[in-house]
Amino acid sequence: MNPFAVPEGSLFGPDNLPYGVFSTPGGPRRLGVAYGDHVLDVGAAARATGVAGELAGLLEAPALNPLLAAGRPAWRQARTAITGWLTEQEHRAAVAPSMIPRAEVRLHLPFEVADYVDFYASEHHASNLGRIFRPGSEPLTPNWKHLPIGYHGRSGTVVVSGTPVVRPCGQRKAPADPAPDYGPSRRLDIEAELGFVVGTPSPMGSRVALHDADRHVFGVCLVNDWSARDLQAWEYVPLGPFLGKSFATSVSPWVVPLDALAHARTEPPARDTEPLPYLDDRAAQPYGLDITLEVRLNGRLVSRPPFAAMYWTYAQMLAHMTVNGASLRTGDLFASGTISGPERDTRGALIELTWNGEDPLDLGDGTARAFLEDGDEVTITASAPGPAGARIGLGEVTGTIAPSH
Amino acid sequence: MNPFAVPEGSLFGPDNLPYGVFSTPGGPRRLGVAYGDHVLDVGAAARATGVAGELAGLLEAPALNPLLAAGRPAWRQARTAITGWLTEQEHRAAVAPSMIPRAEVRLHLPFEVADYVDFYASEHHASNLGRIFRPGSEPLTPNWKHLPIGYHGRSGTVVVSGTPVVRPCGQRKAPADPAPDYGPSRRLDIEAELGFVVGTPSPMGSRVALHDADRHVFGVCLVNDWSARDLQAWEYVPLGPFLGKSFATSVSPWVVPLDALAHARTEPPARDTEPLPYLDDRAAQPYGLDITLEVRLNGRLVSRPPFAAMYWTYAQMLAHMTVNGASLRTGDLFASGTISGPERDTRGALIELTWNGEDPLDLGDGTARAFLEDGDEVTITASAPGPAGARIGLGEVTGTIAPSH
Repeated sequence: MNPFAVPEGSLFGPDNLPYGVFSTPGGPRRLGVAYGDHVLDVGAAARATGVAGELAGLLEAPALNPLLAAGRPAWRQARTAITGWLTEQEHRAAVAPSMIPRAEVRLHLPFEVADYVDFYASEHHASNLGRIFRPGSEPLTPNWKHLPIGYHGRSGTVVVSGTPVVRPCGQRKAPADPAPDYGPSRRLDIEAELGFVVGTPSPMGSRVALHDADRHVFGVCLVNDWSARDLQAWEYVPLGPFLGKSFATSVSPWVVPLDALAHARTEPPARDTEPLPYLDDRAAQPYGLDITLEVRLNGRLVSRPPFAAMYWTYAQMLAHMTVNGASLRTGDLFASGTISGPERDTRGALIELTWNGEDPLDLGDGTARAFLEDGDEVTITASAPGPAGARIGLGEVTGTIAPSH
Repeated sequence: MNPFAVPEGSLFGPDNLPYGVFSTPGGPRRLGVAYGDHVLDVGAAARATGVAGELAGLLEAPALNPLLAAGRPAWRQARTAITGWLTEQEHRAAVAPSMIPRAEVRLHLPFEVADYVDFYASEHHASNLGRIFRPGSEPLTPNWKHLPIGYHGRSGTVVVSGTPVVRPCGQRKAPADPAPDYGPSRRLDIEAELGFVVGTPSPMGSRVALHDADRHVFGVCLVNDWSARDLQAWEYVPLGPFLGKSFATSVSPWVVPLDALAHARTEPPARDTEPLPYLDDRAAQPYGLDITLEVRLNGRLVSRPPFAAMYWTYAQMLAHMTVNGASLRTGDLFASGTISGPERDTRGALIELTWNGEDPLDLGDGTARAFLEDGDEVTITASAPGPAGARIGLGEVTGTIAPSH
C-alpha cells in the first residue's frame, strides 16, 4: 500500500499535518506527524533527507516542547520541510521507511504541560449554568462580559486520550443535607473544550498584546475537562473549582498548528459590551475559529458544539492571562471552557444537555443518562474548514470511566 | 576563619541543614546546604569524601528535584552523610574547600515547581476576610470546617526570594463603579504562608492517606503569595482567584527538611466539627507545626503569624488534595494560605492588618500603609524550636515592589 495515499474521507491530509508523540512496541518516544492512516517519524525523515542543524534537533526530540520553544519562524520552516517530504516525489522515496501505519503506534501526551488554565468563554454555557444554579437572577455574573473568566487547573493530571478516568471520590453534599458525606461522585460530567498550546514564552512583568497572540500560540488540541459536579458544588465557594476538576483532564494526541487553521478563521459573534482596550479586537484580524466538535457517548452522537459561537477568542484569553505581567512558558495549555451553542444539541456538557439531570439523554440503546456511569465511553472529535472546501480534523479525545477503587 | 564555626545566634546550625540551589559568579547551579554563614556544596563534598553511587548523583544535581524524587530513605541517608561531613573532625578537612561563604553565592529557586496549590487553612484569616467582605453574615462559608479549601495557582510565576515584584495591571472595579477600568493595582498585598514541597510522587487514581503524608512531603519553605486585592475582588466570582494572584509568588531559597522540624511538632488547635474519616487526625501523630513567622515592611516588624494556630494541617491538606485520585509529582508545592493568629499583630496579610485599608499601619518613619507602595520591601522570616531549647530558622523570603511598566 502506498503510505502517501490519503484515504478518501481522511481529515489528515497535506493541509493539516498535526504533531504528536508516538512509540512502537519497545521503542522510545518520537515526534510524529499524522498523514492519512500513517504517522511520519519526523526525526527519522530529517535524517533520511539530510536535514541537519537546529531543525533536525527539534524534530528528533521525544516531545513537542523543543519545537514549541523555537518560535514561529521554526514552526514555518518545519511545516514547509514536512509538506515537501510528504507531497513531493523527489522526497517520498527517502521518507517512505519513516511512514508507520497509525494502527501500529501508541500515542502519548504530545507535550509536557507547564501551566494549565481553563477559561469559561462560552456565553451559552455560562448562561445555562447561571440559569440552573441561580434561577431568577441574571444568568451571567457582572464581570462576565468584561473579561474572560479563567482559573488554573492541575497540569499534573492532564493525560492523553485513551487514558481511563477513575471515578473520583470526595465530599458530596446536597443543599438539603445537614453535612457532607464521602464517596464516589454521583454527578460525573464532561466538558468539551478546545485547548491552545503555547510555544514562545514571554518574560514575567511583561504582557502579550492581543495582536501578538499568534507569535505565542502554536496550535490547538481537543480537551475533555472531566468534572465531578457534586464535589465542585460543595467546594467551590469562595476559591473556585479544585477537586471537582483536578482528577483528570484528557487531551487529544494531535496538536493542529494554527497555520493549518487559516481557512477556519472567522469573526467572533457580536458583543454588546464595550471592551477595555487590551481586549478590543475590532481592528484586528479575526481570531474566531470555525471548528465544530462532536460529542459521542457510548457511540451515540449527543452534541455538536460550535467553537465559532464562543464569545471570547483565544487572542483575548491570552492577552487577559498576561495583562498582569504573568509570564508564559513553553507548554502552557489554556482551554476555552465548555463549548456550547444556542441549541440544546450543541451543548458541550451533560449538566446542560440534561438540564442538571432533570431531562436525561436517551442513548437509543434502551438506556438514558443524567450523568456518566461506570464503563461509559465519551469521545470528542472535531473538524474545521480547510482549503478548497476540504475539511481538516483535530482527531479525537476519548476516555472510559473506571469505577472508584 | 573556621567555616565550621556556627556564629552565635545563627539559626542554621547542625540540626537544621536546609537545602538550596546556589551559584558563584560565572559558575553553574549547584545543590547546597546552609550551615552557619556558609553554604556547603554537597556535590563537591560527596566527591571529596569518596561517596559514590546513587547518593552522589542526587547531590551533584543542579536542583533539588532528583533528591526529592528519591524518597525518604534517600533523604535520611543524605542528611546523615551531610551531618557527618559538617560535624565530625575526620570529614571536615575533606569538605572544608566545599564550604563557601554565603555572601559570595547567589541563591536560585531551590526546586522546579510542578503544580502549585494554595490552601486557605487559617480560621482566623478566613474569618477576618468573611467579616470584611460579608459583614452581618457568618464569617466562614458552610464548607470551611469540613474541608481544607484550596485552589491551583500559577507555578510558572513562583520565583525565588529577592526577585522584584512588578506591580500588576488589570481590571479594577469598586462596587459603586458602573464599569471596570484598567490600570495598576491600587490594593497590592502580601500573604505570609508556609509552603510544603512534595518529594515522593503518587500515581493518578490513588489517594495518599493522612498518615502517609511524611512519606511524600520532603520539607517546608516560606511563601509570600502576593495578591492584588482589587483585581481579585472583581474577577473571582464564580471560578476563584486568577490574575489577582498569578503575577508572582515568592519562596524562600532554603527548603527545611521535615526531619529538622521534629521538635516543632505540636497538636493542632481543637476543632469543633466532626471530620470525615479521611481527614480525621485524632489518632495520628501531631501534624501541627510550631513555627513563628515575622513580617517586616521596610524593616519594621508588623506581624508575627503563628503557624501553630492553623486549623488544617499539612497532612490534612495532602490527604484532601489527593482524595479524588489526583496524582502528586515531585516538585509539587502546596502552601497553607495566609497564616493569621487571633490578635491583630499576628495577621499575615495587610488587608487584615489594616482592616481593608481603614486602619493603616504606622511604619514609624512618618509614613503609614493601607496597601503596598512602589519601592516597599516586604521580608518574611520564620523560626521553630530545635533540640535542647535551640531554634532553627527557615531563612527569609523578601521582595521589593517595582512600579508598573
